[in-house]
Amino acid sequence: MQREETAVSTASARTLDHPERTEIRLEAVLHALSDPMRLQVVRFLAELGEGEGAACSAIELAVSKSTTTHHFRVLREAGVISQVYRGTAKMNALRRSDLDALFPGLLDSVLDADTAQRRRTG
Amino acid sequence: MQREETAVSTASARTLDHPERTEIRLEAVLHALSDPMRLQVVRFLAELGEGEGAACSAIELAVSKSTTTHHFRVLREAGVISQVYRGTAKMNALRRSDLDALFPGLLDSVLDADTAQRRRTG
Repeated sequence: MQREETAVSTASARTLDHPERTEIRLEAVLHALSDPMRLQVVRFLAELGEGEGAACSAIELAVSKSTTTHHFRVLREAGVISQVYRGTAKMNALRRSDLDALFPGLLDSVLDADTAQRRRTG
Repeated sequence: MQREETAVSTASARTLDHPERTEIRLEAVLHALSDPMRLQVVRFLAELGEGEGAACSAIELAVSKSTTTHHFRVLREAGVISQVYRGTAKMNALRRSDLDALFPGLLDSVLDADTAQRRRTG
């Protein structure tokens, strides 16, 4: 229990900037999705249950830690994912309800297009 | 008639590179669509009839000619539009059938998202 309390107070002390739903811009979302690594992150998070998150370290990208951090930040700043601290790790979750409310069908069509492309290119 | 023949031979002499349908990449398409000016071009072309095109000069962007040329080139190289010379002008058309075949529903969901966003932001 002690550990959990520590994690909670750390989380409240270190919060990361996120756009409000109304601040999310289509152009920024499309830009965030226009990179294969970031698409891989979104695909991973989309396959988790509704509202579930994953630590950055759970999503293995074949790039350096700083590049990984950069990609997660682009996704967060565009409003595609949320990131919260759990201790020293960041937990990531897809902002599906925000995206679906703003741009119905967009996220699913991008994920479907990504699946179709990976099927074609092997 | 003489003028038309001249235009045709000019067109065949100066062709522009386009990716084949199978070479079109989702990431490049999303990047091409991630800019407000380029979205404006795509929206304009999408509102024309199937297979119809428009000269660059018909699509008024509030930027310099060289910036306009750049945006059209990004769209062409990503496989979003086709560009053919008609005399000295370039005629642009949306590659809707290619995009719809590769990524069903994607283009429409982006156009719908763009419409929704413009409605919200006025």
